[in-house]
Amino acid sequence: MSGALTIAVDAMGGDFAPQQVIAGSVRFLRSCSVESDGVRLLLVGDPDVIQACLRAEGAESEPGLSIVVATQVIGMEEHPLESVRKKSDSSISVCARLVKSRDADATMSAGNTGACLVAAMMLIERLPEISRAPIATFMPSRGGGATLIVDAGANVDCQPSHLADFALLGSLYMEKVARITRPRVALLSNGEEDGKGNELVKRTRSLLEALPVNFIGNVEGNTLFEDFADVAVCDGFAGNVSLKTAEGMGTLALTILEERARSASSEIERLAIEDALAAVRRRVDWAEYGGAPLLGIDGVSIIAHGRSDARAIASALGVASRTARSGYVDAVKAALKDRAA
Amino acid sequence: MSGALTIAVDAMGGDFAPQQVIAGSVRFLRSCSVESDGVRLLLVGDPDVIQACLRAEGAESEPGLSIVVATQVIGMEEHPLESVRKKSDSSISVCARLVKSRDADATMSAGNTGACLVAAMMLIERLPEISRAPIATFMPSRGGGATLIVDAGANVDCQPSHLADFALLGSLYMEKVARITRPRVALLSNGEEDGKGNELVKRTRSLLEALPVNFIGNVEGNTLFEDFADVAVCDGFAGNVSLKTAEGMGTLALTILEERARSASSEIERLAIEDALAAVRRRVDWAEYGGAPLLGIDGVSIIAHGRSDARAIASALGVASRTARSGYVDAVKAALKDRAA
Repeated sequence: MSGALTIAVDAMGGDFAPQQVIAGSVRFLRSCSVESDGVRLLLVGDPDVIQACLRAEGAESEPGLSIVVATQVIGMEEHPLESVRKKSDSSISVCARLVKSRDADATMSAGNTGACLVAAMMLIERLPEISRAPIATFMPSRGGGATLIVDAGANVDCQPSHLADFALLGSLYMEKVARITRPRVALLSNGEEDGKGNELVKRTRSLLEALPVNFIGNVEGNTLFEDFADVAVCDGFAGNVSLKTAEGMGTLALTILEERARSASSEIERLAIEDALAAVRRRVDWAEYGGAPLLGIDGVSIIAHGRSDARAIASALGVASRTARSGYVDAVKAALKDRAA
Repeated sequence: MSGALTIAVDAMGGDFAPQQVIAGSVRFLRSCSVESDGVRLLLVGDPDVIQACLRAEGAESEPGLSIVVATQVIGMEEHPLESVRKKSDSSISVCARLVKSRDADATMSAGNTGACLVAAMMLIERLPEISRAPIATFMPSRGGGATLIVDAGANVDCQPSHLADFALLGSLYMEKVARITRPRVALLSNGEEDGKGNELVKRTRSLLEALPVNFIGNVEGNTLFEDFADVAVCDGFAGNVSLKTAEGMGTLALTILEERARSASSEIERLAIEDALAAVRRRVDWAEYGGAPLLGIDGVSIIAHGRSDARAIASALGVASRTARSGYVDAVKAALKDRAA
């Protein structure tokens, strides 16, 4: 894709919205290199509130920023389906419609994840050949790379055919957006041997073997972090448990290191531990700062962590920009056309 | 239980058997306080090999150690069911029969986990009221405690009634062995709200509400580490994914800290980082050093990590000893009798 890129930003969604969302948007715009094609951000929400935040950032007349009015906000705890149905002028729904009408190339929200999913299904729409739209999230791996978990929580009960769709969507994502040649696709399981797995995993194997993806077999929870696979396919229940367990264990390690830094007996020791802690944090916070793409829909929708600060928002906007520019959605459509033929 | 306690030790099982198993057994015996009731270990395997290891440890005439002959060994990669069927004189099977005949109060093995499970089912036998026997494993939690995951991998496809059994078995384990009053029992799920969960979780809720356990609702992968629940109930697939993801993330954090320690610019900084690393390792290696009890069988069987060194073996023997002395199996039988009444 050449020419300017437009991203609809849900200015009202997230634990630290709108202030941190606006700050992150400004940060992202200012970090875009002048040589690259222009990026335009549509800040969607309450114009007065957005203006006040822009003033606080010294960005009232920042080039590339526009405001789009949305009169309603969906809260973080509201019921996804009901809230999207009732609040047709919510910032999440307005963002989704901007993608549907092609007025935006992508949308990004740190708001209610369930509502983002529902809005994407109802307003941007699922690709007709895909039966379930999964969320994809990155897990850090030892060498510095990452494994894409598909599905990380959108569909908790799945059939083998759903997992086959996730494999295709994940493989194309890593190929087009992360630019990995022949991404290694694996099934998340309880053992690496071919015979291991629950009924779902066992019934999915033959489907993945028949797909035009580089299926390499099973991956276990521990080898997720060992640069063994580029894509790990699972139902949204297992994916969510794995993702959150990784978060929990990472936080436990960080907490222990923080305590050690506080109780260090000298300044030089404290700084050494804090330096090591920062190195761990950069990898552990990966999930929080990645921005999770919603796959299988007819457009680009990136879901940021609810706790996103300005840095996380800027990072998620980077994911939105790279995903939109990569031509990922068109590649999925072409692959689905091939599959149907 | 008063009087001497006898533990049958699979001397031949584990990546570092028999040497580390024997070393760990000697270490465990020597750490038992003289005031406590005596402990006797039956080292099961090839007598010549065991004798040689005992000599290397300077423990040929260690009081409390006996050798029981087993002429066969089940390898770590052998098929569980086939190997137990074919090798009736394997160290794993001989250990299980010693528990069955009440010549031992417990057994401990770092060998082929699947074979230990099969031997327990076939030779020690499942309690008739329990339909599936789960493995229970501890996850470290922030305050220094732990959450017991049941099932951690023995039964990958489960029905709600199986999970209800796991809840009862796990709750009694934490009550009798960890001496926690009214252990908090939770369902591992993809969200804490009551409505969250896959079909299995949703159908299990009402069963847990009707049980004589302190059911507190759902626990998520991240809150597993936050001293939120004492027991987390799940099918063996989700439990295994969670456990191994925690191992993987823990190892990633340790690897980063090791790299930092190596590249430290001064000795004092290196030591500070290594000290912090050791603090993280003590929590992360919890799973490896805990020893996992197999629940729902008519006896005590503790499964140690395949990579167990002498310290891990000694730790697993401690779990075996505490479990046998706690009267856990009798408590389960009494609870099942109450349930049937």
